[in-house]
Amino acid sequence: MLIWDHDDDKLREECGVFGVFGHPEAAVITALGLHALQHRGQEACGIAAFDGKLFHNERHTGLVGDAFTGKDLLKRLPGSWAIGHNRYPTQGTPAIRNIQPIFADLDCGGFAVAHNGNLTNSRSLRRQLVDKGAIFQSTMDTEVILHLISRSDKARITERFVDALGQIEGGYALVALSENMLIGARDPVGLRPLVLGDLDGASILASETCALDLIGAKFVREVEPGEIIVVTKDGVESLTPFQRRSTAPCLFEFVYFARPDSMIQGKSVYEVRRRMGERLAQDTPADADVIVPVPDSGVPAALGFAEASGIPFQLGIIRNHYVGRTFIEPTQTDRQNSISKKHAPNRAVLKDKRVVLVDDSIVRGNTSKRIVRMVREAGAKEIHFRSASPPIRFPDYYGIDMPSEQELMASRMSLEEMRNELEVDSLGFLSVDGLYWAVGDVKRDPNTPQYADHCFTGDYPTRLIDRRYDEVGRDAQLSFLDD
Amino acid sequence: MLIWDHDDDKLREECGVFGVFGHPEAAVITALGLHALQHRGQEACGIAAFDGKLFHNERHTGLVGDAFTGKDLLKRLPGSWAIGHNRYPTQGTPAIRNIQPIFADLDCGGFAVAHNGNLTNSRSLRRQLVDKGAIFQSTMDTEVILHLISRSDKARITERFVDALGQIEGGYALVALSENMLIGARDPVGLRPLVLGDLDGASILASETCALDLIGAKFVREVEPGEIIVVTKDGVESLTPFQRRSTAPCLFEFVYFARPDSMIQGKSVYEVRRRMGERLAQDTPADADVIVPVPDSGVPAALGFAEASGIPFQLGIIRNHYVGRTFIEPTQTDRQNSISKKHAPNRAVLKDKRVVLVDDSIVRGNTSKRIVRMVREAGAKEIHFRSASPPIRFPDYYGIDMPSEQELMASRMSLEEMRNELEVDSLGFLSVDGLYWAVGDVKRDPNTPQYADHCFTGDYPTRLIDRRYDEVGRDAQLSFLDD
Amino acid sequence: MLIWDHDDDKLREECGVFGVFGHPEAAVITALGLHALQHRGQEACGIAAFDGKLFHNERHTGLVGDAFTGKDLLKRLPGSWAIGHNRYPTQGTPAIRNIQPIFADLDCGGFAVAHNGNLTNSRSLRRQLVDKGAIFQSTMDTEVILHLISRSDKARITERFVDALGQIEGGYALVALSENMLIGARDPVGLRPLVLGDLDGASILASETCALDLIGAKFVREVEPGEIIVVTKDGVESLTPFQRRSTAPCLFEFVYFARPDSMIQGKSVYEVRRRMGERLAQDTPADADVIVPVPDSGVPAALGFAEASGIPFQLGIIRNHYVGRTFIEPTQTDRQNSISKKHAPNRAVLKDKRVVLVDDSIVRGNTSKRIVRMVREAGAKEIHFRSASPPIRFPDYYGIDMPSEQELMASRMSLEEMRNELEVDSLGFLSVDGLYWAVGDVKRDPNTPQYADHCFTGDYPTRLIDRRYDEVGRDAQLSFLDD
Amino acid sequence: MLIWDHDDDKLREECGVFGVFGHPEAAVITALGLHALQHRGQEACGIAAFDGKLFHNERHTGLVGDAFTGKDLLKRLPGSWAIGHNRYPTQGTPAIRNIQPIFADLDCGGFAVAHNGNLTNSRSLRRQLVDKGAIFQSTMDTEVILHLISRSDKARITERFVDALGQIEGGYALVALSENMLIGARDPVGLRPLVLGDLDGASILASETCALDLIGAKFVREVEPGEIIVVTKDGVESLTPFQRRSTAPCLFEFVYFARPDSMIQGKSVYEVRRRMGERLAQDTPADADVIVPVPDSGVPAALGFAEASGIPFQLGIIRNHYVGRTFIEPTQTDRQNSISKKHAPNRAVLKDKRVVLVDDSIVRGNTSKRIVRMVREAGAKEIHFRSASPPIRFPDYYGIDMPSEQELMASRMSLEEMRNELEVDSLGFLSVDGLYWAVGDVKRDPNTPQYADHCFTGDYPTRLIDRRYDEVGRDAQLSFLDD
Repeated sequence: MLIWDHDDDKLREECGVFGVFGHPEAAVITALGLHALQHRGQEACGIAAFDGKLFHNERHTGLVGDAFTGKDLLKRLPGSWAIGHNRYPTQGTPAIRNIQPIFADLDCGGFAVAHNGNLTNSRSLRRQLVDKGAIFQSTMDTEVILHLISRSDKARITERFVDALGQIEGGYALVALSENMLIGARDPVGLRPLVLGDLDGASILASETCALDLIGAKFVREVEPGEIIVVTKDGVESLTPFQRRSTAPCLFEFVYFARPDSMIQGKSVYEVRRRMGERLAQDTPADADVIVPVPDSGVPAALGFAEASGIPFQLGIIRNHYVGRTFIEPTQTDRQNSISKKHAPNRAVLKDKRVVLVDDSIVRGNTSKRIVRMVREAGAKEIHFRSASPPIRFPDYYGIDMPSEQELMASRMSLEEMRNELEVDSLGFLSVDGLYWAVGDVKRDPNTPQYADHCFTGDYPTRLIDRRYDEVGRDAQLSFLDD
Repeated sequence: MLIWDHDDDKLREECGVFGVFGHPEAAVITALGLHALQHRGQEACGIAAFDGKLFHNERHTGLVGDAFTGKDLLKRLPGSWAIGHNRYPTQGTPAIRNIQPIFADLDCGGFAVAHNGNLTNSRSLRRQLVDKGAIFQSTMDTEVILHLISRSDKARITERFVDALGQIEGGYALVALSENMLIGARDPVGLRPLVLGDLDGASILASETCALDLIGAKFVREVEPGEIIVVTKDGVESLTPFQRRSTAPCLFEFVYFARPDSMIQGKSVYEVRRRMGERLAQDTPADADVIVPVPDSGVPAALGFAEASGIPFQLGIIRNHYVGRTFIEPTQTDRQNSISKKHAPNRAVLKDKRVVLVDDSIVRGNTSKRIVRMVREAGAKEIHFRSASPPIRFPDYYGIDMPSEQELMASRMSLEEMRNELEVDSLGFLSVDGLYWAVGDVKRDPNTPQYADHCFTGDYPTRLIDRRYDEVGRDAQLSFLDD
Repeated sequence: MLIWDHDDDKLREECGVFGVFGHPEAAVITALGLHALQHRGQEACGIAAFDGKLFHNERHTGLVGDAFTGKDLLKRLPGSWAIGHNRYPTQGTPAIRNIQPIFADLDCGGFAVAHNGNLTNSRSLRRQLVDKGAIFQSTMDTEVILHLISRSDKARITERFVDALGQIEGGYALVALSENMLIGARDPVGLRPLVLGDLDGASILASETCALDLIGAKFVREVEPGEIIVVTKDGVESLTPFQRRSTAPCLFEFVYFARPDSMIQGKSVYEVRRRMGERLAQDTPADADVIVPVPDSGVPAALGFAEASGIPFQLGIIRNHYVGRTFIEPTQTDRQNSISKKHAPNRAVLKDKRVVLVDDSIVRGNTSKRIVRMVREAGAKEIHFRSASPPIRFPDYYGIDMPSEQELMASRMSLEEMRNELEVDSLGFLSVDGLYWAVGDVKRDPNTPQYADHCFTGDYPTRLIDRRYDEVGRDAQLSFLDD
Repeated sequence: MLIWDHDDDKLREECGVFGVFGHPEAAVITALGLHALQHRGQEACGIAAFDGKLFHNERHTGLVGDAFTGKDLLKRLPGSWAIGHNRYPTQGTPAIRNIQPIFADLDCGGFAVAHNGNLTNSRSLRRQLVDKGAIFQSTMDTEVILHLISRSDKARITERFVDALGQIEGGYALVALSENMLIGARDPVGLRPLVLGDLDGASILASETCALDLIGAKFVREVEPGEIIVVTKDGVESLTPFQRRSTAPCLFEFVYFARPDSMIQGKSVYEVRRRMGERLAQDTPADADVIVPVPDSGVPAALGFAEASGIPFQLGIIRNHYVGRTFIEPTQTDRQNSISKKHAPNRAVLKDKRVVLVDDSIVRGNTSKRIVRMVREAGAKEIHFRSASPPIRFPDYYGIDMPSEQELMASRMSLEEMRNELEVDSLGFLSVDGLYWAVGDVKRDPNTPQYADHCFTGDYPTRLIDRRYDEVGRDAQLSFLDD
């Protein structure tokens, strides 16, 4: 008997960021904002606050609602300026050193920074910095940025920041706090999201609009790709030192990462997902009795599919949200088939039915296969699997934790091979065109794609320097276990 | 700004129970079974196993998947017989003393017992036992049963068990382990559920069928109200020493407690809930644009309502499942309105819409009111609230953790007063007749109701002895803090 | 290379007890008293306080100074009546269930009790109680006493207490707290110590006078063997329901257990130990260059030996007090000899010297042998080992944790065999007569020994009922691991 | 009632260091060595090991015997090269970032370093480094050294090390580990100790010889002041790049810090302390009945005093070694006088006696005063206080944690004022000449003192650059709380 965990095959992204400037309870507001962004990272969280004299920093493993509680939060993290960070889950215990925000005492004063994304030239930059005598305390990209800022020979902090950003490539949304300003920045491609809000006059930066909603802030606008937002006591200033490439957020924010109640580019994520299902029903229809979502991420697309097809939507798979760390498996049980600690089949819905299973995507395919088998064992007569995103054929290098190309099911198999492997009666994917329609109501421009769609098309919007960096593992030299 | 938690207004029940006799990995099977029953209690869990010589007992706070993990589980809890228990969440840190299974070294050997339910005469029995010199180590009903067994002057363990059950009243599903048998028992009214299963020849007892499904066991039958199941090496024996009253499980198992994929009396809980919504749409229709469930428990009824009414179903409220312990609230924010750490409005679905909100029930009404306000602020034009169960007017005394009669909204207000208080455009409840139809396709027999419906009707199926027991608080005499 | 721990071969006793009646900060006074008695038990500690309405109980593993700290101690344990307990170190993590004080809700009200000592008929009593339906939650003797009190058919609590004490045999010093009195009791032989003190009008009970000293209380008198002290609002009452045997405290209190600054029977423990060394020098003189104590317990006797012999006293062995839990041993080191994590040789004192090593006693002899070897390797020319107590030949059954008779070195070997085994040039023990002289300036009365000297003489002052109790291990039936 | 802690007035030093090169169980040997050096620091400990490919580092709060245990130690810290560090106790929870060894990934490979001592120009160096873009992660001097090494433009690691040491001033004993060598270094003055040993062919570096004794290593020699020891597979090399000033270890190593069984400059620390007491008895005799040490550090000098004076030595003060973190004080007790959680008077020794109290030193004098008062209350007729070191009048800047000059009793008071303040019948200190006699049998050379005696004489052996560095607190800019 094998126990599996469907989420094992989900994509994971680093991370959620948040910042507030000019609110008397900045740390509380930041804790609430991070809670709203908890879906972007559950491994660890941190808040840095500045009280006009001192920086205060707390970093913890676990959920925001566990780490940043208690009536003394404002005593622990005083001040009206703060930034915060959620970290996505990884294997093993995270070292505190690798939790953000990270801090440095620069010659121009204290500086804290938090980062969502991944640099495509961080390893080469890191090696150059070490060769010049820089000492690294973590294995995070973010520390590279901090060293670049620290070593810049510019005088003003914003100039140094621009200087540092000019040297990095990849996807990032950054929030930073110096002794007199809050800074937000988004990579020139706009791969990772960042929005600007206003809470009773205090400026807010957040990865998604759902964080603004929770704290009751007004949405002002999205930070533009390549833009640097500088918030001081004198107001909000916008710097655009870099040439902007005309692309928009990574499509995976729409497909999977963003919370359904968030808005991206003025569009409801929930509605976009529903439209994906709607288009999926048109592109790859199925003759069936019931539409069943793989919960929770497949639900909006399944609703769209049901609407478009007229086939009833039912919860044929029940999700158990009370899941602990790990699980022990019996070894001496006759049962041949696999069970899940997170999903259970709802036989009353599935038995003797022709079922359309709708999920947001297929990554490795291993858990999709197990879900299919589970549904089959529950008595489904036919299973028609539908993915609400196109086949994922290429890895991401901008902050999405993804298996290698060889592990991606759609990269190594044809549609028919996949159908066979998944043991389904039919298999269908949303087309890239369908995705562009659902997201933007536009036709893809092959010269300058309107969205970062590299995982589906292999068309990467930036150089991939570290990919050609052949020296292996120097930066993984240290095995650290701290108490 | 007030932060609230919708689940605060949900009913809570003690607990989930599980037992296995004759499986080489009894503790592992029990851990899996308890995981499947995790929705019945997340505060604490325990397993007692017997290896032919010694009883081994582990009790922990937290989730099964955190407490009972690791490759050494079978070393810690060896043996082929085991029972287990999930405890429902309460305020404060639970004392280990109050976690089950509990154990006693009787003159006829070791005996472990775990219990779902509540006795209606435990306080009077407890006082009688203390007067006779019994020493109690916990405040649990279950310990009363253990003392009654221990003090019985019968010789055989089954006779003692019958002797003890003959003295208690109320709702219970019990599993117990002696040195040569596994015992299961259900109260004569059948208020709390218990089913019998078979896993490759090993007998299984569990609160719900979903636990059988997870471990791959076959469902044999429900334990009958008043029946005692005795499993020994010679097989399964059924004792029916008590006169059985012709009632069936508490309706709240259908309405809220049971997992949707469980079967009760041969009926799918999910399907019953969908039918509640279907009937609700007929009984109290609404002219609206969208049907929105209060997640997660309102989803099946909302689907039924949508089907019956033809109005589309959408996720207008998004649930955040990553919720930590507690939360700090800002005190200096202008925002007048309340926010939730668990629910967020999906504006794209709600704005300018006439919304039907479907929840499984209304208890105190305070969180229903806040959800309504949240939906209203998100732009809903009209709000029609529908409860998929009848008005809850009377408290339960059989194991459901419920507010007092004065706190129940439907007990102190008329329908119009409730509508006013909830600030909705219309309010509707499923009728008791509708509930009987959805659950059993029968008309309620007022002389001998087919289900325990006391919370809706005030018609209690047993005596309520402790209710008249006026001595207050003797058993709460001790304040304990153990390391 | 073997790493050993000298203290492994020391005797261990349960435990230290303390009680206070009528002090506004009873829990604080009790914490201080337990701290002064910390040498009697370092494994765990507990305090029960009564505030006039409720009993409050806290039990923790570890030291008093770690467990009972913080400004909120009086909030956690309010009231002016309290008792406390220190538990001696054992292997493994102690179950909280086995930490004292223990509590019961009797028909006459709450009752807490703490106990130093060991009963010689607890297993037979326990079996009788279980046969009558009593349920035990711990494996402690103390719970037997509690059940006897609970089941007594007497009306008043003091009568019940006398009733219970009348059934038990062995060594005990008890403190107990009911809703209107503090009770202290000492076994009829007076094996375990208990003293009465007065702190500004509040009555104090404590195992040793050093606890009175720390809190600034006046010593009133020792509780007499067989006496029961009852402290109420009306004052201190003395009950002597049992026939008193004319013996005095266990000699091991003088030899090892009591703190040197305590007084027993009006005698300074330090001075008695110094006299043991003085007499030892006379009884078994040695021609040597230096007197070296085995620290810390051998110091007073070594000083006496040095004074009487005129040979200089030097610290030839240095003790490391910063010792953690356990230690890892290298396996691939050439060094043949053993090292200690607690003791180091002071070569400058030992090299080329004829050394007299003085320790308080020899139990198994294994660590004595290792100390000898360590001193020899440090360059000592001759080693003359002297034990400040007579050969230990017989086990104790009254609360001293001692190896079995076969493990006692002096029980299985002659003096010359021991000298050979220890690899010393000469070996000498204090005589029983010498011990009587040092402790009481009396000659031992063989018919009615003035002290409990059974470990040296085999003359036990009570019956040893459990010793003949052949049923094995029923009370060890349960293996418990609580979170 | 005031509870005080004698050790509060003791000097504290950073720290103990240890290194081993070429032993198959390097981490185990290091753990044992650190255990032997535990008296030099109990707050935290760390070990870095190199297995030929990777560095492994563990840093923990608490004692070595708690942190580095378990059978898996060699799996956690594999390799035959290791260094370790003990940190002295400070207030508050230490940040893991401030525990050593610290590590950097240099361009020439990994490098770990641990440090005992204090630099007198670290703050100015740190500011210079920050101005050049260095990012500091801790507030430790040691990180300054690491940055200097990292930024050196020399090619070989030993050259970089010399380069870095050439820039720092103050007291230090360093051990460092690169990918092919173990390095040890001692400051040119030789303020902090470091010895070289040999364990079956593996080279050992340690703060004191007692660490060699515990692991069974041979003492080779002391590392010379200003010497750098480089251990590679080719053997031990000695570098002496710096001009050596002809001074010897800080006298406080003899007076207080070193363990009595250690040897410094070929002299037994215990014997030196005994000689201090001997000379003290000659310089400032007292007519008395008993010599009483303040335990534990005053014992050797008290023995010397007793020998020289012929007055008997007795343990008039008993030390409680089982002390937890903190303690609560009663506020409503009549008792006017103070109590100690660590020391108790032994009345039998003190009552009606003329007592000579011998301690190793007097720092602030507050606890000396309380001890005197405690001894007086125990009945002493006369108290003659003797300090086995000269008056401490000047602060240390080389790694001893000492109060400011204004807090030093001997700095602000005359002998008679001190006698009055301490409320003793007479007060005497060892003379500087007496100390030189006891330690080295030499007369002090005022032009080039043979020992670092600045605390007694104000004659500092190095420049004190940071002392004139007026910028305050920039490096304390960040308040950190990591999980």
